[in-house]
Amino acid sequence: MTIKDTRTPASTQNASVDSSGSTDGNLEENTGGTPQGEKTAASIGWHKAYVEGSRPDLRVPVRQVHLTNGKSVTLYDTSGPYTDPTVRTDVRRGLAALRENWIVARGDTEEYAGRPVRPEDDGLKHTSPRGGLRNLDAVFPGRPRRPRRGAGGTPVTQLAYARRGEITPEMEFVALRENVSPEVVREEIAAGRAVLPANVNHPEIEPMIIGKRFLVKVNANIGNSAVTSSIEEEVEKMTWATRWGADTVMDLSTGRNIHTTREWVLRNSPVPIGTVPLYQALEKVDGRAEELTWEIYKDTVIEQAEQGVDYMTVHAGVRLPYVPLTANRKTGIVSRGGSIMAAWCLAHHKESFLYENFEELCEILAAYDVTYSLGDGLRPGSIADANDEAQFAELRTLGELNTIAKRFHVQTMIEGPGHVPMHKIKENIDLQQEICDEAPFYTLGPLTTDVAPAYDHITSGIGAAMIAWWGTAMLCYVTPKEHLGLPNRDDVKTGVITYKIAAHAADLAKGHPGAQEWDDALSDARFEFRWEDQFNLALDPDTAREFHDETLPAEPAKTAHFCSMCGPKFCSMKISQSITERFGSAAAEGATAEEVAEGMLQKSKEFAEAGNRVYLPIAD
Amino acid sequence: MTIKDTRTPASTQNASVDSSGSTDGNLEENTGGTPQGEKTAASIGWHKAYVEGSRPDLRVPVRQVHLTNGKSVTLYDTSGPYTDPTVRTDVRRGLAALRENWIVARGDTEEYAGRPVRPEDDGLKHTSPRGGLRNLDAVFPGRPRRPRRGAGGTPVTQLAYARRGEITPEMEFVALRENVSPEVVREEIAAGRAVLPANVNHPEIEPMIIGKRFLVKVNANIGNSAVTSSIEEEVEKMTWATRWGADTVMDLSTGRNIHTTREWVLRNSPVPIGTVPLYQALEKVDGRAEELTWEIYKDTVIEQAEQGVDYMTVHAGVRLPYVPLTANRKTGIVSRGGSIMAAWCLAHHKESFLYENFEELCEILAAYDVTYSLGDGLRPGSIADANDEAQFAELRTLGELNTIAKRFHVQTMIEGPGHVPMHKIKENIDLQQEICDEAPFYTLGPLTTDVAPAYDHITSGIGAAMIAWWGTAMLCYVTPKEHLGLPNRDDVKTGVITYKIAAHAADLAKGHPGAQEWDDALSDARFEFRWEDQFNLALDPDTAREFHDETLPAEPAKTAHFCSMCGPKFCSMKISQSITERFGSAAAEGATAEEVAEGMLQKSKEFAEAGNRVYLPIAD
Repeated sequence: MTIKDTRTPASTQNASVDSSGSTDGNLEENTGGTPQGEKTAASIGWHKAYVEGSRPDLRVPVRQVHLTNGKSVTLYDTSGPYTDPTVRTDVRRGLAALRENWIVARGDTEEYAGRPVRPEDDGLKHTSPRGGLRNLDAVFPGRPRRPRRGAGGTPVTQLAYARRGEITPEMEFVALRENVSPEVVREEIAAGRAVLPANVNHPEIEPMIIGKRFLVKVNANIGNSAVTSSIEEEVEKMTWATRWGADTVMDLSTGRNIHTTREWVLRNSPVPIGTVPLYQALEKVDGRAEELTWEIYKDTVIEQAEQGVDYMTVHAGVRLPYVPLTANRKTGIVSRGGSIMAAWCLAHHKESFLYENFEELCEILAAYDVTYSLGDGLRPGSIADANDEAQFAELRTLGELNTIAKRFHVQTMIEGPGHVPMHKIKENIDLQQEICDEAPFYTLGPLTTDVAPAYDHITSGIGAAMIAWWGTAMLCYVTPKEHLGLPNRDDVKTGVITYKIAAHAADLAKGHPGAQEWDDALSDARFEFRWEDQFNLALDPDTAREFHDETLPAEPAKTAHFCSMCGPKFCSMKISQSITERFGSAAAEGATAEEVAEGMLQKSKEFAEAGNRVYLPIAD
Repeated sequence: MTIKDTRTPASTQNASVDSSGSTDGNLEENTGGTPQGEKTAASIGWHKAYVEGSRPDLRVPVRQVHLTNGKSVTLYDTSGPYTDPTVRTDVRRGLAALRENWIVARGDTEEYAGRPVRPEDDGLKHTSPRGGLRNLDAVFPGRPRRPRRGAGGTPVTQLAYARRGEITPEMEFVALRENVSPEVVREEIAAGRAVLPANVNHPEIEPMIIGKRFLVKVNANIGNSAVTSSIEEEVEKMTWATRWGADTVMDLSTGRNIHTTREWVLRNSPVPIGTVPLYQALEKVDGRAEELTWEIYKDTVIEQAEQGVDYMTVHAGVRLPYVPLTANRKTGIVSRGGSIMAAWCLAHHKESFLYENFEELCEILAAYDVTYSLGDGLRPGSIADANDEAQFAELRTLGELNTIAKRFHVQTMIEGPGHVPMHKIKENIDLQQEICDEAPFYTLGPLTTDVAPAYDHITSGIGAAMIAWWGTAMLCYVTPKEHLGLPNRDDVKTGVITYKIAAHAADLAKGHPGAQEWDDALSDARFEFRWEDQFNLALDPDTAREFHDETLPAEPAKTAHFCSMCGPKFCSMKISQSITERFGSAAAEGATAEEVAEGMLQKSKEFAEAGNRVYLPIAD
């Protein structure tokens, strides 16, 4: 494996991001100017590098942390070209279409005119002064393009390729990324135990895989709402979330400019983007659930698939007969999608149009390689409602739908709860794996208690770590603002870091090959007082450095063999180091514990003779 | 059970705290004035109340949250008289000696002159201008007293009483607090499965119990160090930590004024205080581990027992033969106490003086009812070192020591790790329970990964929740500053809240009777849009309110039937409420799922006829 290292610190990369503040003329005027991606200079202590694959256009990004002892540690990287100082990015032009040649080379897709963009796609009235039809170029003029789909109804999904025994460049990419063989990737996808979300209209992504045999992934939700936030903020949140480690991003916008926001997010996103098409469909009928129709929904799915959405949450498991099962719950239906579908079923007294038209939906998704994320619309919203009849009735339906989706070669993952006390978590993953033929489980938390609003990243981080250990493939983050408000930039970062902790703790517990190397490198740095290495290896180098400097700000303290916890005279690490120096060699030479103990008798005598002191006080 | 409610909002209690800024003349001049306890007005949305026991002086404090729907919820309270507006507190006089009559009435203790306080107790030289002997009154003039101990060598421990079949007022107090029968409390203490730390010289405490059959407890560490912080800060940190829910506080001071800081903390603490006497003993020999002696250590233990320390960490399990077992660890010995004892053993090539003199130590602790916290000096300091030979060798020794302590009627708990990946956590609690005859386990975290300095409250909160679910009785908190610096006020709060989440999540998972009522009350409030109730029931009402107000600050939003996440037109809770209204009654009347579904047919028709709308938009 060849690693090419850009060797310019990522912390200086911001200089290369285009920061012209000019407003793009074609951007809606209420977006507040050009989305500019991540601009603040976070002094991240790693360098961008690439692992080169079998072809020149297959370069897998990694973070390389160069340690002060001459060694280096290679970490998974989700931040995209934004942290590569050799790449000039411009949010108005979008990222390079990394996968375009791969997709074209397969020869199974065709470009076509595409659905015209309508005013109501952005939540505007037909009669709006900005009314009238537009094409995709008007929404994102920086990169003229026509949408692409499977030619003649061919499924163009990674699942279809994997089943045919083909290892696509995308599969090779994730194999290098995960440090496994491409054949393992192909097998897991073919078996439906993993998904590789990669819409043919989102060639900008760096492919990634979601499955229990691979590293646990983290999704970050962004999205404006009717109440607050702008396109610019959403694009910034996306780049910000991926910089801290988000593996996918869901755009859950519900207000105006849904279509335009999504286009800007997609064109600038190095990670797969997920959505809930139902949200936009509801906007199109002015928030009246009962006015939703299959036609409006289907049109919205096509609209989003043409834009390049990589996976879609579909609440097709919320069936008419399950709605009354929620009536005596503590918190009813807390999923927005779930409650919309429940309201529709009730209003019409009909079976869900999503359930009824599921096969047609499969055909559409297969034509773009959109991955299903089968939504858990009846997930519990409180500890009291966990693992109840409504929840598991829906899960069984998701199992049926998973089987249908696979018949159409559509990649599928299954969403999971929610609020679940610790002792009821394992049943969720065990049942899901059984009912859904080991399709990847994608859970929100779960939150392990209801009593800590403002800390639900923690109440849920606990449940997330546990359920990931037991086999969940991707975790949907929860921010401190859950239940209270929309997350800002700091909340997004806190949510992502918390969930990276949960994911990595699970990777360790699952014994994922290589996972512990990161911990070991950091612990070595800690034991050897290599403070800078400890910071640079941290999930959040900036905050680690800041916390250290609060008590001991001076530069010499960065190399000092003590810290502010115990002070110079009292350091257990120093005492312990002297023990390692004295006894480590014998044990390293393969001596048994008894032999080491024997050797110790002699050594401790020498130690006493050499001055009988463990260490000299540096200061008084 | 009678609950007496003070009915003045706790948020106004600060007015009753003496806030005279005058410096106490007898306080060391470098403490920066009078410690003043908690002064900032946190608008905590609950009222202090008391559950009255079998005698007038037995009043158990609780938090009573009065809801806007007329109901109220009673929660466990650790904050002491500081949150009772009817009690005037003054940190220079200390808290009232709640237990004094109970202790005296038992007639098995005697007052005596006590050990004189020496300059070196506060880290000063004998030749200091402030040199010379003082008595306790000089250290804390606000409450003249003489120390007390078991008369004629009688063990005066709660364990001794429990074994004799006596239910002490302390036991009745915790029974009311935990909502169990006094006999259960007595049995658990008598069996050694629970401890009730209550030094006869710390009559100010509100008794609490630590054992797996009871609510999971949280300890917060405070303490100045050679590098930073003052007496005043430490007393403030203690009141601050208990306000947010700390059940015990450990004073781990290592710098100057150790004795005086501890005295002020003890006289003002409503919760049991723990220490590590070895830290102070080391100060007395100027940081030279090899100069420690049993005599110096023993004298320090007596000094602290006379002050009223309720439990002491004793690293008697770090035996000479175990030291070399740590030589090839990734991070050696990370416990300060452990490394000091290891250094001593090596320097002298002798067995630990703590291990050798353990029986004499038991006699001392029994005379004051100081509880053992048998330290895990060889706990793993990194994922790589978890569950290794050194760690479990020490644990087996702690099992032996536990048996000895029980022979002397000394209450005992066992400390546990440390850094442990999730899949190795359960082995820790299972082994400890087996080896130590179910003595309460008291663990630090464990941290489930090493890669997130600045977020170790979270890496460890995950492990803490899990190990508590499996039977750990008390969790030692970890703050965001772990590995990096000394926690400030915000860090202490974050650490305590994180650990209260872990503890409560475990209470839920263990099915502790009544634990879920809290979650249910909060979820009801959430579902019914009772925002104020939701805030007031939160573990941290201030932050919950603040986060909500960031996006929707206006007062009407507090009663609005929507929030900023979805906006007014799109609220799943509202949709769901209408479902509950429609179908809840049928299900509530005991109808089966089928009957409810049947009823639904009719209802949904009515629903459609009634206007076919789920809800009216409040705003557009």
